[in-house]
Amino acid sequence: MQGISGTGADGADSIVVNGGYEDDLDLGDEIHYTGAGGNDPNLRKQIADQTLTQPGNAGLVTGELAGRPVRVVRGFRGDPAHSPATGYRYDGLYRVADHWSKVGLSGFLIWHFKLLRLTGDEAVDFVPVENLPAGDAEPGVKSGIVTRVIRSTKVSESVKKLYEGRCQICGVRLEVPGGLVAEGAHIRALGSPHKGPDVPSNVLCLCPNDHSRFDRGGLWIDDDLAVHDQEGAVVAQLTVKPGHQVALEYLQFHRAIWGK
Amino acid sequence: MQGISGTGADGADSIVVNGGYEDDLDLGDEIHYTGAGGNDPNLRKQIADQTLTQPGNAGLVTGELAGRPVRVVRGFRGDPAHSPATGYRYDGLYRVADHWSKVGLSGFLIWHFKLLRLTGDEAVDFVPVENLPAGDAEPGVKSGIVTRVIRSTKVSESVKKLYEGRCQICGVRLEVPGGLVAEGAHIRALGSPHKGPDVPSNVLCLCPNDHSRFDRGGLWIDDDLAVHDQEGAVVAQLTVKPGHQVALEYLQFHRAIWGK
Repeated sequence: MQGISGTGADGADSIVVNGGYEDDLDLGDEIHYTGAGGNDPNLRKQIADQTLTQPGNAGLVTGELAGRPVRVVRGFRGDPAHSPATGYRYDGLYRVADHWSKVGLSGFLIWHFKLLRLTGDEAVDFVPVENLPAGDAEPGVKSGIVTRVIRSTKVSESVKKLYEGRCQICGVRLEVPGGLVAEGAHIRALGSPHKGPDVPSNVLCLCPNDHSRFDRGGLWIDDDLAVHDQEGAVVAQLTVKPGHQVALEYLQFHRAIWGK
Repeated sequence: MQGISGTGADGADSIVVNGGYEDDLDLGDEIHYTGAGGNDPNLRKQIADQTLTQPGNAGLVTGELAGRPVRVVRGFRGDPAHSPATGYRYDGLYRVADHWSKVGLSGFLIWHFKLLRLTGDEAVDFVPVENLPAGDAEPGVKSGIVTRVIRSTKVSESVKKLYEGRCQICGVRLEVPGGLVAEGAHIRALGSPHKGPDVPSNVLCLCPNDHSRFDRGGLWIDDDLAVHDQEGAVVAQLTVKPGHQVALEYLQFHRAIWGK
């Protein structure tokens, strides 16, 4: 069976990849992994939506946000190209790169997690500790893990310029000596599996805080451009300047993958 | 002569690396480049502090924040190991990875910029445009540029856990479904040239907005733990929990590199 070991508070420390889910994908260095919960172990079928408050799923989200490695164990029922013929095998450290939801064949919401194998430099194992650790007075500089890739393109630069670096959600404009901090946020994310387009109607100018929340489903935007938090409360109205059309289809896509 | 072509509004599009400054360093793939301004061209000496409002310096900061490539041209007066014997040579695209200040031999503040050569995948040339561009409906996913590397270690995880993900500057706690967004910020940065230690007394739990501002000198912290903005106004008091000692020496180091 598949399984996630971990909780939202401490993060997931390991997962077992052992096939059995319709949307599972194992490319070796990249794994699309189905979340836990919502199924009846006796009936062996999905009977409810999966949630991100389920401890294993919350553990993977926490690991993604912290850039924390997850140990991957592959079992004999997994994709034959990457799995052991018999039994279970420890297969190294991965990071959680993304997660999203989709309504499955059962009609219930299923969460999906994308995991990427860590390279040698990145694969720093993590052991949680209760008290503050001593640390390292002369740390190696290659031990870092990239947790966020911000793309810079003509498109997002132009959108940021149009809004003069002001966040379209909260209105903040973060000045630093010599410049401004603002991010071009793709509504429907670029890259697999979302495959959003890199066009102005798919890009917002956001502050790093709202970008982080938006990308993780902590904020979502309705067709009337009201901005909602994860409980559904309206927290702001999206600012849109003349000349910038925000496409409703991408807002709808974003809401769908976050189960809204 | 050296030179930066660009402005704070549009970013720097190119620099000429041609030696002549005491702290210049050219390692081929990594360049430490001295900022512009504050010198008298007739006397050929430094007569004032350099500033980040100087257009060329502001252009490099803007480029760093946007992850925008800078064209590097090397001249015959540069380090012989990496420079042409005569004349000038276009040497490809770099990104600005960091900047900091130091009081030079002259007694005046000098700004320094670290540039790193872009790999093929990252080297997407940037041409600013006035109106929103059409963009790309099916963009390549490898064209991204990493503009921020967040290290995740036992140390920063433990500090974030102590503060339950709450920002020590503004107090915000950014919840997303299944987790929290918070960052472990090194006061004295890890890696060259700052070489800060990866220890709890050098780490703060910050929200992405305050982390971005703090890392770029938009916020700085006094020995009494008052948090100042770039104009010097007190905007907050740093929250410090029992069990976490924030070392004044690292706050002093941070202030020094930002000229405070």
